[in-house]
Amino acid sequence: MPTPTGVGTEELRRANLRAILQTVHTHGPTTRAVLTKQLGLNRSTIGALTGELQSLGLVTEQTAVVGGRGRPSHLVVPREDNVVVAVDVGVDRIAVALVGLGGEVLDRRTRGHQRGEHDVAHVVESVAQMIEETLSASQHRRCLGIGAAVPGAVRASDGLVRFAPNLGWYDEPFTELLATRLGRPVSTANDANLGVLAEHIRGAAVGYSEVAYLSASVGIGGGFLVGGRPLTGARGYAGEVGHMQVDSQGPECRCGAIGCWEMKVGENVLLQNAGRLTGGGPPAVAEVIASAEAGEARAAAAVDGVAEWCGIGIRAIVNLFNPEVVVLGGCLAQVWRAAETRVVESFESSSLMSPRADTVIRSARLGDDSPLIGAAELAFEPVLDRPQAVPQAV
Amino acid sequence: MPTPTGVGTEELRRANLRAILQTVHTHGPTTRAVLTKQLGLNRSTIGALTGELQSLGLVTEQTAVVGGRGRPSHLVVPREDNVVVAVDVGVDRIAVALVGLGGEVLDRRTRGHQRGEHDVAHVVESVAQMIEETLSASQHRRCLGIGAAVPGAVRASDGLVRFAPNLGWYDEPFTELLATRLGRPVSTANDANLGVLAEHIRGAAVGYSEVAYLSASVGIGGGFLVGGRPLTGARGYAGEVGHMQVDSQGPECRCGAIGCWEMKVGENVLLQNAGRLTGGGPPAVAEVIASAEAGEARAAAAVDGVAEWCGIGIRAIVNLFNPEVVVLGGCLAQVWRAAETRVVESFESSSLMSPRADTVIRSARLGDDSPLIGAAELAFEPVLDRPQAVPQAV
Repeated sequence: MPTPTGVGTEELRRANLRAILQTVHTHGPTTRAVLTKQLGLNRSTIGALTGELQSLGLVTEQTAVVGGRGRPSHLVVPREDNVVVAVDVGVDRIAVALVGLGGEVLDRRTRGHQRGEHDVAHVVESVAQMIEETLSASQHRRCLGIGAAVPGAVRASDGLVRFAPNLGWYDEPFTELLATRLGRPVSTANDANLGVLAEHIRGAAVGYSEVAYLSASVGIGGGFLVGGRPLTGARGYAGEVGHMQVDSQGPECRCGAIGCWEMKVGENVLLQNAGRLTGGGPPAVAEVIASAEAGEARAAAAVDGVAEWCGIGIRAIVNLFNPEVVVLGGCLAQVWRAAETRVVESFESSSLMSPRADTVIRSARLGDDSPLIGAAELAFEPVLDRPQAVPQAV
Repeated sequence: MPTPTGVGTEELRRANLRAILQTVHTHGPTTRAVLTKQLGLNRSTIGALTGELQSLGLVTEQTAVVGGRGRPSHLVVPREDNVVVAVDVGVDRIAVALVGLGGEVLDRRTRGHQRGEHDVAHVVESVAQMIEETLSASQHRRCLGIGAAVPGAVRASDGLVRFAPNLGWYDEPFTELLATRLGRPVSTANDANLGVLAEHIRGAAVGYSEVAYLSASVGIGGGFLVGGRPLTGARGYAGEVGHMQVDSQGPECRCGAIGCWEMKVGENVLLQNAGRLTGGGPPAVAEVIASAEAGEARAAAAVDGVAEWCGIGIRAIVNLFNPEVVVLGGCLAQVWRAAETRVVESFESSSLMSPRADTVIRSARLGDDSPLIGAAELAFEPVLDRPQAVPQAV
């Protein structure tokens, strides 16, 4: 921390407020003693700052006995009656969660799309109803914001969904429509970009700054951290991993091109190759994997085939980004757990590098909730950034 | 610029020295008046700083008549008797250049590999001899450093070449061997990473912060700027674009995998498809393009095929990075100039985004010299970063 000066005192106080709130939000209840040490400030300054966060209604302080010597210390606890609403618009279903400051999921509901349709007006209405139900069940809580994840490219400036081929959305003003419907501001981002954020804050990528998050359901989303910062590209569309051509022989993709990676490793490819009906989502994928393990030849061949294509795509990503860790979500995580050896074998068919030594590959720790948790973090961002600007009305 | 304080004066002076030297190195001779304005400092401070750079032997000051009103101003001129040696180790040839502070190429020589071999000891000896010839022809100049570009993945920590499949190098201590042979320190980096740096400082990517540089000769190198910073990845190996699988039908690549992008768009692929002998480099590629334009069917088909695969690979890169600009070098630039329409058509076969509107695609402005100029910038970096530490001996 820089030494306080006449000019910088106010900025410094804000930076310290932010640092304390972010610490307890990310790591949970923290003693003043630990905060004092981490922030390099003296005890009275920490006391004044936590007092301010208390008066803003963002934390409580509890006297707790901490450590072996039984010395009591003030424990700074995030108040989870400060909530955000997180939304994850999937191809098969919509998930809405109420998440408290500190990251706890307090309520969570999912629903299939209305009449199975992706029409943006229907989706907005379904999401809005689910949010209203969630909020009316959570009285006496202060809602700090709404964050949404969508499986497509989102324009950073205004939340316009530029393209989400698996929803059939092109230039859909989803964010604006939802905000108007609810009469509240909404922040929207790409689901995989939010997934990598969540895994970095609370999941399998904690402590890493070069991260590739790859998650498949019907399509594949990619989210990246480069030097600890989210990869956005010029307009927020970076990370579209699903449409690398990997197979010149097809099949044709929803995007119009042929042989895209997501046509070789999505849920429905696996189900189809195993002779199952498509559309069953993660439980259907789990059934195929279980059948493969029980000896069903067609299921085993399907898992093996998808595992091989997983390895091919992951290799391209590792060669491009040289990440410390590759975090796999959705169907990729299921296939990885079932057929790690086959994925690695395919991955290593090139002598380019010694990737198993240099790169950690692992499943998402937040499971299929990474984008949902990331959407909550997106909604918390303004408050974490300016705690003093938190709305005082409930 | 922050206000000087007791603690920061020395740091501030260094930052300002650095800013002035970088400005004149990048933009050439600059008046004190412009420096005063750009840096937000007063005239006497600028005078003291340029005086210090003069006494370090890095700049001279000339009195020049500048602007319409004929008012004389001190022109701060980089002294190009401060030189670096830049090396570009290609698959077909080695290039060595003497580059002055300010970026002028003062001497440039190329040579085929000794007996056509890539044995690292032979390459080191060839490079060392070329450097010695260059330096002995440049007496009375102060050599500030040596930078080298290689077509492979280079470990950031010590310059070890981890893999350069087109040279057949795996874990070759090229940097250490060359430094020992010359008795001088050497800095080495991936050729495309240096290419993007050079194009950003002096070429087609000036003013952009999200840049993809793709250059093909025998293989394809990729160098990226993300948020204005070079993409390095965890250990400096990022940007290996040549080994994305784009064709499941092969052919087998030198890296051991099949259907890698560089097997579809390198110089030799184009030559082979056109029925020419491989190994002729850019002039041979130019001949095929000229023949195609003159109506030779086989040459035209070869150009068309490579253009199509160019578009497929560029699309993957644009979807992943959402760059502002894609700068093409080597064979990719030749094909782009000859068959832009075909490349764009292939690029746009996916409806994912409106890439022609969002992304500029253009040839490298430094031609095939981008990596060489980038190697010079690599060698200048320590001096630009700490002008006051410049060696005073010639």
